[in-house]
Amino acid sequence: ARAAYIAGCAGTACTIVDREFGVPALGTMAHSWVQLFDSELDAFCAYAKAYPDDCTLLVDTYNVLKSGIPNAIEAFKREVLPRGFRPKGIRIDSGDITYLSKKARVMLDEAGFEDVKIVASNSLDEYIIRDMLLQGAKVDSFGVGERLITASSAPVFGGVYKLCAVEKDGEMIPKIKLSENAAKVTTPGAKKLWRLYDNESGKALADVITLEDETIDDSHDYEIFDPDYTWKRKNVYNFTARQLLQPLFINGKRVYEYQNIDEIKKYCLSQVDTLWDEVTRFENPHNYYVDLSQRLWDVKNDLIKQYSKR
Amino acid sequence: ARAAYIAGCAGTACTIVDREFGVPALGTMAHSWVQLFDSELDAFCAYAKAYPDDCTLLVDTYNVLKSGIPNAIEAFKREVLPRGFRPKGIRIDSGDITYLSKKARVMLDEAGFEDVKIVASNSLDEYIIRDMLLQGAKVDSFGVGERLITASSAPVFGGVYKLCAVEKDGEMIPKIKLSENAAKVTTPGAKKLWRLYDNESGKALADVITLEDETIDDSHDYEIFDPDYTWKRKNVYNFTARQLLQPLFINGKRVYEYQNIDEIKKYCLSQVDTLWDEVTRFENPHNYYVDLSQRLWDVKNDLIKQYSKR
Repeated sequence: ARAAYIAGCAGTACTIVDREFGVPALGTMAHSWVQLFDSELDAFCAYAKAYPDDCTLLVDTYNVLKSGIPNAIEAFKREVLPRGFRPKGIRIDSGDITYLSKKARVMLDEAGFEDVKIVASNSLDEYIIRDMLLQGAKVDSFGVGERLITASSAPVFGGVYKLCAVEKDGEMIPKIKLSENAAKVTTPGAKKLWRLYDNESGKALADVITLEDETIDDSHDYEIFDPDYTWKRKNVYNFTARQLLQPLFINGKRVYEYQNIDEIKKYCLSQVDTLWDEVTRFENPHNYYVDLSQRLWDVKNDLIKQYSKR
Repeated sequence: ARAAYIAGCAGTACTIVDREFGVPALGTMAHSWVQLFDSELDAFCAYAKAYPDDCTLLVDTYNVLKSGIPNAIEAFKREVLPRGFRPKGIRIDSGDITYLSKKARVMLDEAGFEDVKIVASNSLDEYIIRDMLLQGAKVDSFGVGERLITASSAPVFGGVYKLCAVEKDGEMIPKIKLSENAAKVTTPGAKKLWRLYDNESGKALADVITLEDETIDDSHDYEIFDPDYTWKRKNVYNFTARQLLQPLFINGKRVYEYQNIDEIKKYCLSQVDTLWDEVTRFENPHNYYVDLSQRLWDVKNDLIKQYSKR
């Protein structure tokens, strides 16, 4: 939930994350609240009485259009308006939410609740939400759960630990691991990571990995090339180079200061904004390149040759 | 790693699980060990010297067939045999492991190491292992990592919490949650779960959910039916009914005694053995039914009718 909030979500239904990390906890009742009472209307009225200033009612326990929304409207009128508040919203958690939300919007509007929001939930992900919006769903807010907090679309993130250099007599000796799988050939040496931003648009052009003692001089043009297809080369100009890596610990001492979660969120969103739309679309996104410097590529290439000969 | 061991794995590369839960830790060197030395042979010899009684060498840092296996054979001869031990194995972690394992087997056999095992790893899962075995891979042991410890093939396991009954004046009142999604309609009431085992084969025939005050009398035939297609009915005979649920806490007190991990593993494997092969195959497995008792179905059906009318 903390990561989701940083990446742009508005809040969480997990209250402990509010307490521990300051992520705003949001939500409404569970179905069990509605089931607990003798009637749905009783359940809604009891909730509205308890939270007249923040009243979102869950309308799909029995039948959204026949009972849920009519009962919600009745509860809003009986228990929220007389207390001088406006109701917050209704939540639909099952069924054809696109269809139901359109009907719900009409019913709420006709009852004078044009300002009441419609919240949707139920195993939503980015693809379902896109399709709902394309089909005109009248949803103001999406509750996304298990598809967000698990890595549902890419459950395994391959990460490997390999040695890249050995310090010997005060000198860093680059080391390589070869493989028939090109992706498993390591890039040797102690390295730095740079991001090149276009000065005109502010967008990220590419990332470049260099050797540790290299500097990218952004006052001059800089040639980048694809690390797999090295004949694909391109000159970058009018850009700003920024180092991405920051030390967290130096000689066992923490040197990094934790930031406020809202500062992190702001920074994250501003960085996502430096990506071209072409890179962020779902289908056929443009590759964002992570290139090597010429010197680093030469070191890698030399070691590949040297170890392949043995 | 604890769950994987219980489900049938031989051990883990995660040493803390050995210490905490008694799961045997197994493994060999990392690639970094090999990279650390000036030559692969030096690395192997140093390792063999340190672990002559448990020597498995990682042969794919540079080139499996040209350097890895010849160096491993040399290290076995120089450092393991003279100490009076037999080497344990070699591990291949990249490339076409099926092909490489066949070549490796021949090379090891010719060097007199017919008893040395071949271990394979590298993003393996059940499908890759099946195909490797079908194509005659000479692999004795498979190291499976991220595809096992993450729910790679089914990253999201839908689970919902819904109220099924309310105690009122000492009586349990069954409660239901309706939905257009049939799978989201809850089964009301306080319940028991039974598994019916065929007395002849020992195999599990079906699971049956009953109301809490019901008993399945396995001295008589018992009619089960599909909870979705209730006209699909079947008589079960010559079976043993066993209750699956066990109380862990009663009135806030733990009443369940933890068992030794090897007891749990044994029990788990014996239970998996009660599943028909038809249920456990990868493609088109036979559905294993979880049925409702007639009385429970009647309670559910009555509540569906009652709440749909409103």
